[in-house]
Amino acid sequence: MTLPRDGLQAVIWHDDCLHLLDQRLLPQAHKFLTLTTAAAVAQAITDMVVRGAPAIGITAAYGIVLAAKAAYALDPQHWQTLIIEDEQRLAQARPTAVNLTWALARMRTHFSTISGDPVPVLLAEAQRIHEEDVTANRYMGDRGAALLPENCRVLTHCNAGALATGGYGTALGVIRSGVAVGKITQVYATETRPWWQGARLTTWELLHDGIPVTLLCDSACAALMQQRRIDWVIVGADRISAKGDVANKIGTYHLAVLARQHGVKLMVVAPSSTCDDTWVDRDQIVIEERAATEVTLVAGHRLASAGVTVWNPAFDVTPAHLIDVIVTEKGLFRLKG
Amino acid sequence: MTLPRDGLQAVIWHDDCLHLLDQRLLPQAHKFLTLTTAAAVAQAITDMVVRGAPAIGITAAYGIVLAAKAAYALDPQHWQTLIIEDEQRLAQARPTAVNLTWALARMRTHFSTISGDPVPVLLAEAQRIHEEDVTANRYMGDRGAALLPENCRVLTHCNAGALATGGYGTALGVIRSGVAVGKITQVYATETRPWWQGARLTTWELLHDGIPVTLLCDSACAALMQQRRIDWVIVGADRISAKGDVANKIGTYHLAVLARQHGVKLMVVAPSSTCDDTWVDRDQIVIEERAATEVTLVAGHRLASAGVTVWNPAFDVTPAHLIDVIVTEKGLFRLKG
Repeated sequence: MTLPRDGLQAVIWHDDCLHLLDQRLLPQAHKFLTLTTAAAVAQAITDMVVRGAPAIGITAAYGIVLAAKAAYALDPQHWQTLIIEDEQRLAQARPTAVNLTWALARMRTHFSTISGDPVPVLLAEAQRIHEEDVTANRYMGDRGAALLPENCRVLTHCNAGALATGGYGTALGVIRSGVAVGKITQVYATETRPWWQGARLTTWELLHDGIPVTLLCDSACAALMQQRRIDWVIVGADRISAKGDVANKIGTYHLAVLARQHGVKLMVVAPSSTCDDTWVDRDQIVIEERAATEVTLVAGHRLASAGVTVWNPAFDVTPAHLIDVIVTEKGLFRLKG
Repeated sequence: MTLPRDGLQAVIWHDDCLHLLDQRLLPQAHKFLTLTTAAAVAQAITDMVVRGAPAIGITAAYGIVLAAKAAYALDPQHWQTLIIEDEQRLAQARPTAVNLTWALARMRTHFSTISGDPVPVLLAEAQRIHEEDVTANRYMGDRGAALLPENCRVLTHCNAGALATGGYGTALGVIRSGVAVGKITQVYATETRPWWQGARLTTWELLHDGIPVTLLCDSACAALMQQRRIDWVIVGADRISAKGDVANKIGTYHLAVLARQHGVKLMVVAPSSTCDDTWVDRDQIVIEERAATEVTLVAGHRLASAGVTVWNPAFDVTPAHLIDVIVTEKGLFRLKG
């Protein structure tokens, strides 16, 4: 593969196939699935073999390469018509991932100029999307790390790492850069109920790269701050409003409030494609509420009484005034008054 | 049995035996263990068949009855000497439960006045300890509920219920009383990582009594408050300092900070035996840190990478200024400035 080797990668194009690290199995097993059809790629996105908005976008772009290859083999004259079904299947693989739509639209812009075999052109574009994401992450990582003091102790929530992106990560990109330049001396990861992204993915990813990490329960973060054991909270973002409000994994707002109360700073790291200028009013966004079983069952083991009602919001909204800085590949936005 | 039937009970004396609800199996199974020896009672306390300081004290008192019965049968003249080994075994069953020592000391005060069979006297005293606990809980429940407004929506953390006491509960006692008088319209329970007391025990206990309850992840409490869906947080206490600082299950401090930031009130409910006048300086208390496996394993299923460091404090300390009121059986203490 032609991508720069930036350590851990969950999405790899190799030998004309797409290889996805099956994140559902982490940390118990480290297995790649090899996919050869667009339909299989769409199913893998739906099944959360791969997750994280940038990683999903990159995966879908490679899916288009597989779709074009099959369509061109079937009928070199009409591959652009034959591909439509696969394209729609990929677009509908996850309902809310903005990057998915964005990546598919970017692939489609090349269709009109292609003559002959579309695979070389489309593969080059998919790899460009992939490379640009890693480049942006490295840039954001270095810019974010430059903001940190010496001997910095950081906490991250959920997984905004190499596993969620093309590589290197957003929040974990800042942590990688901060560790590399010797500024970060301690990394804490929340377990991130109910999906355990912190416990399952972030600890695995950091230990994979030789970065020591201490795991703690979400509700212990306040005590950690009370004991003055942390300086910065660093997280990713699912969507950023025109005013700088940030929608992110449930529990981010809880950390933001606690951080401000304890003099701990909060950094949000996300590519500019996460910014949604059509989102203005904080209450305008609909908070997705997910299945009760995410909370009541763990690996098939029942933890709560049958019949209990569950409130399981997938994310929360942190108002801009609680955020010290948003780091994007287009620069920094300092929000604190 | 002679105890008043105050609904759910985890500790029952019946037919000359002690019956303990095995809380390790909840909510999957509702089974009582029948114990006939003091050694078995001590082991059950160690193994957390029963938990919660008041419940442990009551259980140990019944353990003394079983010890005296066996010792008297063996040698009616020397039962007080023969009982010492069992007494020590019970005292050492859990290292930190103050109520355990208190209950054993109270049983021992009767030894010098007993002539003949000690069982009737000691059983009466164990049942008195048990009844007094339930009476105190009912009183605190009613006093606490009187503080709540109409149409009150409450959140509780951990399990400070019938399962943790002789019956009725402390924090859940206030919730039972508040529901009974029609003041409480909504009850939320945190899942309470890492031991799941909220998910496993509180939801089971409330649903058992026909009280609807909504479960949520610990990290979602901030979003719940942000959406103005809660009025009071009601919790128990493990220890209360001379200044009104409260040591309680990890996550209590996180709720206290968030509550104050969102205009939500905080009530602590605990018997006066929880007050420790020798504890003055907040930092003086040693925070117990428990095994990493409590965080990394759930029902034997590994959730985090092997080799990860874990910070697993069992409780935190909430400063008095964040607490609106402490309810005890001796009255109310209003702490907010």
